[in-house]
Amino acid sequence: MMPGHLRDGIETGRLRWSRLPGSEEPEGGEAGPSRGASDGDGVESLDYEVIENFAYREEQAQRGKLYVGYYVLLKWVLSLLVGIGTGLAAIFINLAVENFSGWKFAVTFSIIKHSYFAGLLVYVLFNLALVLSSVFIVTNFAPAAAGSGIPEIKGYLNGVDTHGILLFRTLIGKIFGSIGSVGGGLALGKEGPLGGSTKYHLSSKLLPIFQSDRDRRDLVTCGCAAGVAAAFRAPVGGVLFALEEITSWWRSQLMWRVFFTSAIVAVVVRSAMGWCKDGNCGHFGSGGFIIWDISGFGQEDYSFQEMLPMAIIGVIGGLLGALFNQLTLYITSWRRKYLHKKGDRVKIIEVCLISLITSILSFGLPLLRKCSPCPTSEANANIECPHAPGLDGNYVDFYCSKGNEYNDLATIFFNTQDDAIRNLFSAKTFHEYSAQSLLTFLVVFYSLAVVTFGTAVPAGQFIPGIMIGSTYGRLVGMFVVKYYQKLNVEEGTYALLGAASFLGGSMRMTVSLCVIMVEITNNLKLLPLIMLVLLISKAVGDVFNEGLYEVQAHLRGIPLLESRPKQYMRHIKAKEACKDQKVMCLPRVVRVSDIVSMLRSNKHNGFPVVDHGRNGESLVIGLILRSHLLVLLQSKIDFQSTPYPSNGSVSIRHNFSDFVKPISSKGISIEDIQLSDGDLEMYIDLAPFLNPSPYIVPEDMSLAKVYNLFRQLGLRHIFVVPRASHVIGLITRKDLLIEETKDPATVELQSPSVRPHHKDGKNLGRHVHPEQPLLDGLLVQE
Amino acid sequence: MMPGHLRDGIETGRLRWSRLPGSEEPEGGEAGPSRGASDGDGVESLDYEVIENFAYREEQAQRGKLYVGYYVLLKWVLSLLVGIGTGLAAIFINLAVENFSGWKFAVTFSIIKHSYFAGLLVYVLFNLALVLSSVFIVTNFAPAAAGSGIPEIKGYLNGVDTHGILLFRTLIGKIFGSIGSVGGGLALGKEGPLGGSTKYHLSSKLLPIFQSDRDRRDLVTCGCAAGVAAAFRAPVGGVLFALEEITSWWRSQLMWRVFFTSAIVAVVVRSAMGWCKDGNCGHFGSGGFIIWDISGFGQEDYSFQEMLPMAIIGVIGGLLGALFNQLTLYITSWRRKYLHKKGDRVKIIEVCLISLITSILSFGLPLLRKCSPCPTSEANANIECPHAPGLDGNYVDFYCSKGNEYNDLATIFFNTQDDAIRNLFSAKTFHEYSAQSLLTFLVVFYSLAVVTFGTAVPAGQFIPGIMIGSTYGRLVGMFVVKYYQKLNVEEGTYALLGAASFLGGSMRMTVSLCVIMVEITNNLKLLPLIMLVLLISKAVGDVFNEGLYEVQAHLRGIPLLESRPKQYMRHIKAKEACKDQKVMCLPRVVRVSDIVSMLRSNKHNGFPVVDHGRNGESLVIGLILRSHLLVLLQSKIDFQSTPYPSNGSVSIRHNFSDFVKPISSKGISIEDIQLSDGDLEMYIDLAPFLNPSPYIVPEDMSLAKVYNLFRQLGLRHIFVVPRASHVIGLITRKDLLIEETKDPATVELQSPSVRPHHKDGKNLGRHVHPEQPLLDGLLVQE
Repeated sequence: MMPGHLRDGIETGRLRWSRLPGSEEPEGGEAGPSRGASDGDGVESLDYEVIENFAYREEQAQRGKLYVGYYVLLKWVLSLLVGIGTGLAAIFINLAVENFSGWKFAVTFSIIKHSYFAGLLVYVLFNLALVLSSVFIVTNFAPAAAGSGIPEIKGYLNGVDTHGILLFRTLIGKIFGSIGSVGGGLALGKEGPLGGSTKYHLSSKLLPIFQSDRDRRDLVTCGCAAGVAAAFRAPVGGVLFALEEITSWWRSQLMWRVFFTSAIVAVVVRSAMGWCKDGNCGHFGSGGFIIWDISGFGQEDYSFQEMLPMAIIGVIGGLLGALFNQLTLYITSWRRKYLHKKGDRVKIIEVCLISLITSILSFGLPLLRKCSPCPTSEANANIECPHAPGLDGNYVDFYCSKGNEYNDLATIFFNTQDDAIRNLFSAKTFHEYSAQSLLTFLVVFYSLAVVTFGTAVPAGQFIPGIMIGSTYGRLVGMFVVKYYQKLNVEEGTYALLGAASFLGGSMRMTVSLCVIMVEITNNLKLLPLIMLVLLISKAVGDVFNEGLYEVQAHLRGIPLLESRPKQYMRHIKAKEACKDQKVMCLPRVVRVSDIVSMLRSNKHNGFPVVDHGRNGESLVIGLILRSHLLVLLQSKIDFQSTPYPSNGSVSIRHNFSDFVKPISSKGISIEDIQLSDGDLEMYIDLAPFLNPSPYIVPEDMSLAKVYNLFRQLGLRHIFVVPRASHVIGLITRKDLLIEETKDPATVELQSPSVRPHHKDGKNLGRHVHPEQPLLDGLLVQE
Repeated sequence: MMPGHLRDGIETGRLRWSRLPGSEEPEGGEAGPSRGASDGDGVESLDYEVIENFAYREEQAQRGKLYVGYYVLLKWVLSLLVGIGTGLAAIFINLAVENFSGWKFAVTFSIIKHSYFAGLLVYVLFNLALVLSSVFIVTNFAPAAAGSGIPEIKGYLNGVDTHGILLFRTLIGKIFGSIGSVGGGLALGKEGPLGGSTKYHLSSKLLPIFQSDRDRRDLVTCGCAAGVAAAFRAPVGGVLFALEEITSWWRSQLMWRVFFTSAIVAVVVRSAMGWCKDGNCGHFGSGGFIIWDISGFGQEDYSFQEMLPMAIIGVIGGLLGALFNQLTLYITSWRRKYLHKKGDRVKIIEVCLISLITSILSFGLPLLRKCSPCPTSEANANIECPHAPGLDGNYVDFYCSKGNEYNDLATIFFNTQDDAIRNLFSAKTFHEYSAQSLLTFLVVFYSLAVVTFGTAVPAGQFIPGIMIGSTYGRLVGMFVVKYYQKLNVEEGTYALLGAASFLGGSMRMTVSLCVIMVEITNNLKLLPLIMLVLLISKAVGDVFNEGLYEVQAHLRGIPLLESRPKQYMRHIKAKEACKDQKVMCLPRVVRVSDIVSMLRSNKHNGFPVVDHGRNGESLVIGLILRSHLLVLLQSKIDFQSTPYPSNGSVSIRHNFSDFVKPISSKGISIEDIQLSDGDLEMYIDLAPFLNPSPYIVPEDMSLAKVYNLFRQLGLRHIFVVPRASHVIGLITRKDLLIEETKDPATVELQSPSVRPHHKDGKNLGRHVHPEQPLLDGLLVQE
């Protein structure tokens, strides 16, 4: 199948090449003289930089309204599918986790009626089995599924392709792995994997249109937003998360599509939950999906006196969050250096050991805790206490001797995470937890979360973060309730603020986190409080280190370009930044053996191509990518025996998709290519395959400016060139504002600097300039 | 007062200039030879392009941690002040409007007990007086306060400075003008003016730091978000509005600050409303600020059958919205061509006439309408019917003969807008309105809104849009209630969807509108429905024309650069786009008379400066702005008698703030400058004042790529230069990722292409390259 783009090139543009003798050649390039004129059809679309793709798409768009409509429809349908898929995946994971956990607790509790030791044993073994299945899936089936995946996705959208993150098997690994790891009671959350659920759509090779980097990125962005939207039932929060935390380049057109996907997820999740409420989903009743809908119940008002304890929560969140980032950094780097080098077996043993410790602590610590008597005041008349264990609700009866007692540590520790969070957030349950229990849980769970982070299982950091934060938040809330007696204070509100503060202090998200928290509580009135806490915790955390995802990306060697240049870059000139570089230039027509030796000698991904103008002066005619050179070498069909520009039918020989890098594969390597001695003696004319106008900067531009250019446009290569000898023209806002539909006279009036006949750009492009006929012809890009 | 930046230049950099004889000069520039070496301190910071300011700020930031802290603190304090200011302004406007309206209705109703004709007269005169005060303020005091201001703000943030929009008097004019126009009952809303309320902070010259364009833009963005947040008590919606609709360049750092401002607004408004609930604010009780808090009351569920009528609402919204844009376009352009040319008097008469018609219609039409009997069923037992007129609530008694009757047209028409909207949105009030009344209101109000739009009063389009939309929404809802008997359908929900659809069809906002609607209703469950309706209405509207703000910006000659290049730009080369341009180059040292004649001969805002290298070849050394040339001509202190590069102490003579354009003034014109004959014979050395490295593009880059560069970086000038002869280096991601803190050895390892000694950039910068000693020295930028 040949894309319309190239087909058109063949139909409309007759490729002409001519050897023009009689022009001197002061510097003899190895590959000989190379002059000619070409219409250069299909040239630009072979470059993968974001802007190039953009250009390619725009060209595609011109093919006809029908095609555009089809393309747009396809994008929306895909977004819809991503939304539905993510929603269903989220439902599936939640169902599975809740059912496994429910069953686990049911079995355990039926056993502890007879023997606590047997119960512990069953509990430990059950968890171990689940965790083992998870780590087995990751190590043997989908290694890229380990961890939260967010640093990798962030890197991908920043321009760094991590091997394997977009594979279908990674998705499967994430889904089933996280069921095992979360169901197995480890101190990690289930939200991370959902980010990956889009990606199997991408692998489907059915849709040749979506082979462009840009479309893939868009879909991944949609998937990210959908993942967060599904995890918290927070569609707006998901969009803002993708916007604030994940993407590097953002277009407002994309926003609407991302929002659409998130809303679809919300609808799917909501429908499924409605269906489950009728009892169709086993243990998954109202459980699963943290939602703390306090509208009408919780604390709706707050006084200025409460600002102080809330600020304290912010400070604690910043400190504990920064500490978490630092500890996980140390442990992960230690793990990478010493532990994980020894192979998958060590990884499996490690995870099992952690599971064992987690199970014993979560079972054993509540056992050691003395039960408390149930509250007796009238205000708590409608509270069920003690509550049967293993179901959602407060005041759990666990190892209590008397009838009207409950175990406060078991209420949060010996429970699924969603239920524990709900219990910590719960309103109207004053003094349910003792300070001692909360502190114990905080210390133990924090340590477990630090140790579990970075093991070879799929894992999210949101849920553990919420658990840690809400624990100390509730602790502070207890003191507020105690000392500001008169206020209508709810401990649950403080728990929520604590959760926000820890996530803010660790991940350093701001707006999106705010909105997610508001959506979880379904109460906009808490917004100012959450903001206050987040402002403080982020500021405190920033004093110590970077955000969790940045730290992790750094550790994994994912080079993220930040949105601002570093300050010292102001003092470096572009020229100086590439001073020690040996620039490898290629002539236009180049011998195959030269290409091979050049590709072998370095790892550069792009090479300037230099040709000679009519007067013999050298001229940079474009950039060729390593990957394109490799494709050319592999296919061999462009080899020619003469060192002169080739004639013609290049486009026929190549399909656009030949140059598209397969998804997440490592691409072709120079070592993979087999060339005979005869092949090595051949030549290739690079002109049809290069990007004729890469972005350039003058040699003495400051690196900070170069950085901005690079980052804002999402580039991969910039040429540093000498200072120009003269200016051909100045382009200003007015030159870019001419309307296509206006008649030439008006255009002339509006902007005298723009040629009115732009519609005939093609024909005019072929018009040969008297001074540089060869180059001019060569470099026309359409 | 001299900014630290320039002072440092004097202290640390000894400016050296040397005349080097013995280098040939092939092209004698009029201004004579111009060679020399300079440290060029203070050069780059004199350019106002976004990036330049950025660079300037970064340099500032290096002055010390203390300074950075002060600067950051200042920014946050300013955001806080903007938030508080906007919140207070919103409260003030609402209070004033509600009180004027309340008093107006109270007086009118006490009179109509005796005579309807006298009541009409008083009502008309009252409205006329208010409207007259508004139009008087606008025409005589603050002409820039007319209209919504959003197209102008959008233009400002896109890079087009409209005269007057940021003046303090414009703010005052907007606040008081909108009190008059909204209080006077015109078919327009009060939210527009709030966008302007930041701006008086900017005018305060107390803060020299905020003279950079970038900081001003940030504050204006904050102000915009704050305005919307205040108008709807929708902080998240405000942020997204600023993000989606207003800004052209967005940085995630800004997002948090914008969000902070919005939250402050929300807190201020909420506190004030709490205070007002106790009866401290006259007629402003629960009224003012549309909030339709339906959580727990409205329709929370929906069936698939309802999708069809909802889709129909979307289609209607798209059609009516597009029609609105088109009609207002015609009327506004007609008005500009014929009416408003005749001076302020015509404007005043026009507004008064419209006020007269509006008053008579809103009073007279309900009079003609027959009253309906109050509902009697038990479900409506707790509804007060008939309701006393002039207070908020449904079932208003107006010109009804019997005791238990109400006038449904008066309920929506003869009321303040906020109350009317609340009544249209109200739940549990089935069949309150007859189809006939709704249709009458729709047609009349739509026509009035079209005619009122574009008159010389401050005006927002949100509230009229909501009124129009909710009317036909409710109309559709009535039919749904009638035909789908069994469903739990609320007419109010359809009214809300109608409002969303009309705003979507007219303004073409998506995400932000969704969120605003959700925040108004305080119910996240309607999100998918609102999205569906918006998707349809935007798509339908897009078939016909552009969004309201784009149409208006176009009409006012505000050249907005869209986020994507036009398709035909793919076929134009940069060279062709400036083919007919005569590039006006300046030599480095230029005669004053030449500058004057050049500035007189054209309107260009920037000029390339060309100098000669050692070998006599010409070299482009930078860009000088018209405004800087004018400052130089006006101050005269840089005039020198010799046509050679000046020596030294340039920096002392100039203050950074000299070059800052005063806020929203038109700046200096060449006609304002008085120069003696002696002055005209003098020379100026431009080197210290130019931007030495403006962005460049090669001549045959496609205009689409140039557009992207221009748009993404927010540039004002791009140089089109000839194709380079060779490539000095390639900058890739790796070259931009070196950490400043790492020791040189590591840096060397990571990226061999970057000089490890970048910390010593200053010293190395002065290192003279053997080939181009002059230029090199000249172009060092620090």
